[in-house]
Amino acid sequence: MIATDGRARAGLFRTPRGSVETPVFMPVGTLATVKAIDPDELRDMHAQMILANAYHLHLRPGDTLVRDLGGLHRFMAWDGPILTDSGGFQVFSLASLNEVTEDGVEFRSHVDGSSRRFTPESVMQIETNLGADVVMQFDHVIPGQSDHAAALDASERSLRWLARCRTAFDLLHAHDDPVRQTLFPIVHGGVHADLREAASRSVQSEGRWDGVAIGGLSVGEEKPAMYAMLDICDNHLPRELPRYLMGVGYPEDLIEGVARGVDLFDCVAPTRMGRNAAAFTSTGRLNLRNAAHRTSAAPVEEGCGCPACRTFSRAYLRHLITAEEILGVRLLSLHNVHFLISLMRRAREAIRAGTFGVWSRDWLERYHSKTCLP
Amino acid sequence: MIATDGRARAGLFRTPRGSVETPVFMPVGTLATVKAIDPDELRDMHAQMILANAYHLHLRPGDTLVRDLGGLHRFMAWDGPILTDSGGFQVFSLASLNEVTEDGVEFRSHVDGSSRRFTPESVMQIETNLGADVVMQFDHVIPGQSDHAAALDASERSLRWLARCRTAFDLLHAHDDPVRQTLFPIVHGGVHADLREAASRSVQSEGRWDGVAIGGLSVGEEKPAMYAMLDICDNHLPRELPRYLMGVGYPEDLIEGVARGVDLFDCVAPTRMGRNAAAFTSTGRLNLRNAAHRTSAAPVEEGCGCPACRTFSRAYLRHLITAEEILGVRLLSLHNVHFLISLMRRAREAIRAGTFGVWSRDWLERYHSKTCLP
Repeated sequence: MIATDGRARAGLFRTPRGSVETPVFMPVGTLATVKAIDPDELRDMHAQMILANAYHLHLRPGDTLVRDLGGLHRFMAWDGPILTDSGGFQVFSLASLNEVTEDGVEFRSHVDGSSRRFTPESVMQIETNLGADVVMQFDHVIPGQSDHAAALDASERSLRWLARCRTAFDLLHAHDDPVRQTLFPIVHGGVHADLREAASRSVQSEGRWDGVAIGGLSVGEEKPAMYAMLDICDNHLPRELPRYLMGVGYPEDLIEGVARGVDLFDCVAPTRMGRNAAAFTSTGRLNLRNAAHRTSAAPVEEGCGCPACRTFSRAYLRHLITAEEILGVRLLSLHNVHFLISLMRRAREAIRAGTFGVWSRDWLERYHSKTCLP
Repeated sequence: MIATDGRARAGLFRTPRGSVETPVFMPVGTLATVKAIDPDELRDMHAQMILANAYHLHLRPGDTLVRDLGGLHRFMAWDGPILTDSGGFQVFSLASLNEVTEDGVEFRSHVDGSSRRFTPESVMQIETNLGADVVMQFDHVIPGQSDHAAALDASERSLRWLARCRTAFDLLHAHDDPVRQTLFPIVHGGVHADLREAASRSVQSEGRWDGVAIGGLSVGEEKPAMYAMLDICDNHLPRELPRYLMGVGYPEDLIEGVARGVDLFDCVAPTRMGRNAAAFTSTGRLNLRNAAHRTSAAPVEEGCGCPACRTFSRAYLRHLITAEEILGVRLLSLHNVHFLISLMRRAREAIRAGTFGVWSRDWLERYHSKTCLP
C-alpha cells in the first residue's frame, strides 16, 4: 500500500505487464474487445488493466485458437495487464444450465446450444490458454438473495473448487520462468455475514495469493446488503493483498467500495449504457435520447477530457443516437469508461492527500443532487 | 491541372477550407458521420474532403438546427472541405414518392412518413443552412436503364432546376464575403449519348462553375454503358473544371473513371461493405466471415498502413465480425475507406509521373486476378 485514508487504500498492484495504481476501474472486454472502443483509445484514457471472459472466449473464437495466435494480449493488441473472469458467473446466468455436480457444471452454450462441461481443471486450462496476467478461479455463483443453505453450499463448493484450481494452475505453470499468470480466489457467501467471514478466512488457507476477489455481489441484492458484506470482507481479508470487487460498477458503488477497502473494480455498465444512450456525469446520469438535448451545444460534461466531450455537443450525440449511428455508441462508451477511470484516479489522489472522506462525501452528494436529470 | 497523362488528370481543387488534390475519393458521411469512423481517424488516413446529405440531414436532425449550432463543419467536427448532395437521388430512391411537378417534388419522409416538399429553391436554402463548401443542385434522378424519352424529360427538368438553383443560390449568397460555398451543376442523360452530350454543353451555359458533376450513373446500368457516358462527358465538359462522378465507387470504377478524366468520387461502398464483413484488397475482395480466415495471423492486406492491418489479424477481425462486435465494423470500414483514399493517392502519383496507363492496367489485372477469394 502507498497510502491509506480511513479504510480506503491507494496501492500498486504489480503484474508481469506493469504495475496498476489502485483503486482502479478495469474496462470489460468480454469477447477480447471493450465494446466499441479500440486499444489506442483505452491507452489514451489511461486504462491500466482490462478484463476478458473465459466462458465467452472459450465458446468464440475458442481459447486454443487464441493461444495459437500468441495469446490474448497479442490477439486483441492490448499489451497492458489483463484479467480473465473464469466464466462461473456466465455459466450460472447466461447458459442453459443442465447440472451442477461436485465435479463441475454441464451446460449448454448460449451461442449455439452445444453441450459443454466446465470443471475447475478445464477452466484453468482455458485461462492458461488465453494467457491473461490474472486468472480467476472457477466458482459457483448463485442469485443475490439466495438463502443461507444455498449460499453455504455454493460457497463451500467454490472453496473446494478453489483448491482444485490451485492444484491444476500450479501444474500448468510449474515450469513458468518468469511468472506469467497469477490465480485469484473468490470470496462468496451471498448476503450472509457468517459465510462471508468464513470464506474470507478460508481462501487464505488455500494458498498464497497476489490478490483476492469478492464475488457474488451486485447480483440482485439490496445495496446496503452489499456494503455490509464489503465491511465484513474488509475486516477479515489480509490488508496487504489487493481486493477485487467483481462486476461492480456504477460510480456510487465504486466510491462506496473504495471506502470499504476495495482496490479493483470492473463492470460492463459504462459500455452497455453507452449502447443505450446513457451517460455518466458528476451530477447524475443523462439520457441522450431526451429531447432536452436536441439543441444543446454543451458537451455531455463541462470540463471532461474525454474525446466525446472535448469535441462534440450533446445535440450532435443525440442526433447520432437517434439516427442509430455507430459513432454515437462509440462516443458515449468512451465517455462512460473515461468517467470511471477518471473517478478512480481522483479517488487515488484523495486517498494520498488524506482527503478521501470529505472528497467522497461531497462527490456522492453532488452525484445524487439532481434526482431527475434529462 | 498539375499534370495529365492520357485523359487522366492530376489537379488541385481549391475550396474555402483548403485545397483538395485530385483525383480523390471522398468518404460519405450521410448523416454527418462517416459511419463508424471519427474525424480524427479520417484525418489520420488523409481524407481530404467528405460528403454529407441534404435530404437525410433535413429530416434528421434538421438543417436549421445544424445551422443554429454553427453549421455542418462544427456540428460534426470536420474542419476540412465538405460537399453536400442535394438529396435528388434520395428523394427518388428512398422516400415514398408522391408527385413530381415542374415546381418540385412531393414525397414522404422515409423516417416518419411525414409529407415533405423539395424545390430547387428549398434545397438551396437547406444546403445553405448546412454550410458545406460545395453544394449540389437539386436534380431529377431516374433509374439507370430509363428509355430515351424518360431520360430526356428528367435531364431537361434537371437543367431547368439548375437555373432556378443558380438564381436561388446567388440570392442566398449575394452578400458573402469571402465566398463560403460553391454550387455544382449535375450532368444527366441516363445511358443516352446524345443526352449526355447535350447536358454537358447545357450546364456550361447556365453559369460559371468551380466544378461539374456527372450524375445518374452506377444506378443499375451496365458498366460499359457507364464508361461510354464518361467518355462523352470527358469530350464535352471543359477541361479546366474538376469533374465529380457521383456515387461511384468501387476500386475498378475509380480507376476507370480517372482514366476517363474524372477527378472526384464518392461512394458508401467502403463503409457499407465494412458493415457486411467485406474488405477490399489489391487482389480482390475478402469476406471476413469466411472460415478460411479463422486461424489466419495475417492482416487483411500485407503492407497496408491502415489501423486494422497495422495491428490486427484476419482471425481477430473474423472473431469480431462473428461475435457482432462494433470494433469489427469499425476496423473494416477504416480499412476500406483507407484503401480507396490510398488508391487515389497512387493514381495521382502515377499521373504526375506519366505512368498512369501502365500502372492502372497492372493494378486492374492484379485486382481481377483472383476470381474467387475467400
